Amino acid sequence: MTKPLPTGSTIGILGGGQLGRMLSVAASRLGFKTCIFEPGGDCPASHVANYHLQASYDDRDALAKFGEAVDVITYEFENIPASALDQLEALCEVRPNRRALTVSQDRLTEKAFLQDIGLKVAPFMGVSSLDDMHKAVAQIGAPSILKTRTLGYDGKGQARLRSPDDAADAFAAMKGAEAVLEGFVDFSCEISVIGARAADGQVACFDPGENVHRDGILHTTTVPASVSAALRTDAVLIAGRVLNALDYVGVLGVELFVTPSGLIVNEIAPRVHNSGHWTQNGCLIDQFEQHIRAVAGWPLGDGGRHADVVMENLIGADMDRIGDLSADPNVGLHLYGKADAKAGRKMGHINRISPKG
Amino acid sequence: MTKPLPTGSTIGILGGGQLGRMLSVAASRLGFKTCIFEPGGDCPASHVANYHLQASYDDRDALAKFGEAVDVITYEFENIPASALDQLEALCEVRPNRRALTVSQDRLTEKAFLQDIGLKVAPFMGVSSLDDMHKAVAQIGAPSILKTRTLGYDGKGQARLRSPDDAADAFAAMKGAEAVLEGFVDFSCEISVIGARAADGQVACFDPGENVHRDGILHTTTVPASVSAALRTDAVLIAGRVLNALDYVGVLGVELFVTPSGLIVNEIAPRVHNSGHWTQNGCLIDQFEQHIRAVAGWPLGDGGRHADVVMENLIGADMDRIGDLSADPNVGLHLYGKADAKAGRKMGHINRISPKG
Repeated sequence: MTKPLPTGSTIGILGGGQLGRMLSVAASRLGFKTCIFEPGGDCPASHVANYHLQASYDDRDALAKFGEAVDVITYEFENIPASALDQLEALCEVRPNRRALTVSQDRLTEKAFLQDIGLKVAPFMGVSSLDDMHKAVAQIGAPSILKTRTLGYDGKGQARLRSPDDAADAFAAMKGAEAVLEGFVDFSCEISVIGARAADGQVACFDPGENVHRDGILHTTTVPASVSAALRTDAVLIAGRVLNALDYVGVLGVELFVTPSGLIVNEIAPRVHNSGHWTQNGCLIDQFEQHIRAVAGWPLGDGGRHADVVMENLIGADMDRIGDLSADPNVGLHLYGKADAKAGRKMGHINRISPKG
Repeated sequence: MTKPLPTGSTIGILGGGQLGRMLSVAASRLGFKTCIFEPGGDCPASHVANYHLQASYDDRDALAKFGEAVDVITYEFENIPASALDQLEALCEVRPNRRALTVSQDRLTEKAFLQDIGLKVAPFMGVSSLDDMHKAVAQIGAPSILKTRTLGYDGKGQARLRSPDDAADAFAAMKGAEAVLEGFVDFSCEISVIGARAADGQVACFDPGENVHRDGILHTTTVPASVSAALRTDAVLIAGRVLNALDYVGVLGVELFVTPSGLIVNEIAPRVHNSGHWTQNGCLIDQFEQHIRAVAGWPLGDGGRHADVVMENLIGADMDRIGDLSADPNVGLHLYGKADAKAGRKMGHINRISPKG
């Protein structure tokens, strides 16, 4: 795929959650159709897509049908089974590329990659056995945090070590999964950069946002982040380095810890990112359209921002606040069309805007 | 329907063109599903809707199914057959109401209504026969313009009279349709106001835009309009008067001529309006979400504007400019997903933004 995808083409999206939903809306703005591949029925993305192919990721017939029906494939989550990717890549271009997925699917591979390209990460060591665990704790110490190498998100698959004595319990909490022990980072705040890279190598980043978490889930992202202009520039340069090193095409989220000795990369996500939702009401081209533009081989927006924004996630019972929020003239609402407002479930988000400071 | 429609409800939209498409996207932001009733296949709105009920407006079974499946009904065009409305109104609330449709479906009724509520309109007279035509020309004179009472849009169903001698030719051009002769208005420019009224009577208007037409089709809308602050206020007050007089719920477009003796109402449209597309990139809540909010019984956005905008329609071969336009950092693209870029066909629009002056 070397030419820009013509309008009217169909973009295949693996995953039918809220990210797929907002990607589908962005694709429609550029005249594209979308086909969502998602095992679940009545999924958020299916409400605004042309097609919803409801099948599991090991359904080879469905994957073949999907790969043949679409003009390019992208995804809203990084844990796509390798077997599904093998089959799809033979049929159709997948963007971002396989390397980005391989790197970000595994915390150990990701940390090694980031270190290899000269970025700072927290001290880390792979843990496959209780013996490894004791060696890792001896080297990294405590406080520290043990995380499964794969599949964890929003605080799941993690165990904190307050002292070296917690080593055995933390290891047991992994239930036999391969893990990585990460040293404690003394950070003043977490920021993230949403960067994008086009098929021709053009790179554009949005302003870094400052993230606050609650119960392991992103609570708010505030733009601009309360860090120096120099640090903001550093953050953007780090995102650019990651994008180039991966020969990346699409939008990528980079989470960074702000520490007395500079920025430390927490993790990267090869997709549109919750901490980039503020762009929907702060920018002419939001992260979702930016991703679709990249994936379709179109030019990127420049990442410019016209407002200050505080993005806040609406989790579970926050849906009871919709009446008040909808009456606030400075609030942009974004709801995901999920039926049940379960505790801990991301139901939507708001962007509270104010004039650019 | 007195309470706000809960998220997860389904909004029925009559008509599946670009306005239905953008209404459907706006509905998704608020967590609503949409069902599009549209006779044509592969229509723009169906690409981003939950359901597309493809049937004709005289298919009573399909209308019954539609009326029972949705929680409220709205529309993207004013020429809905009365028989279909009769059936639907018995099943489900239709917003905006019947009166707004009755008034705006017929140019003669519309002009009489506007005059009755104290607004200025061009001189007009109904024309049902050649005899009427001669009487109308004797009273109104020329230059003037003869228009069919119903169904005309984008310059269709119209004949210009340069002199009274053109009367018979103009009448013949109506092909027997009931018509109205409108006197020439010497205007310096055309502006339009997109107003909205909520179910509880709350009114909010967007800033007036200045319209330029080409070949009878809207070419650009520029915000702010180059008229005095006093005239802008007059325009908003006129929209408010129309909204209240119709006990209107939803978004309404009001086209106004700017003349030496003040504003003259050209026409009203009981729906989202092409001249309000600039709100997509100029406002936190655009006209499409504003309409959905009103129809769903939600509070309205306040109509605030954060940028200056020039909206330009992309007609037919303008689609050849997409490559250049997509690379312009100040341009927001909105394409409709129509397959054939026929001459005169609205294929999309752009919003060119600049800092608020």
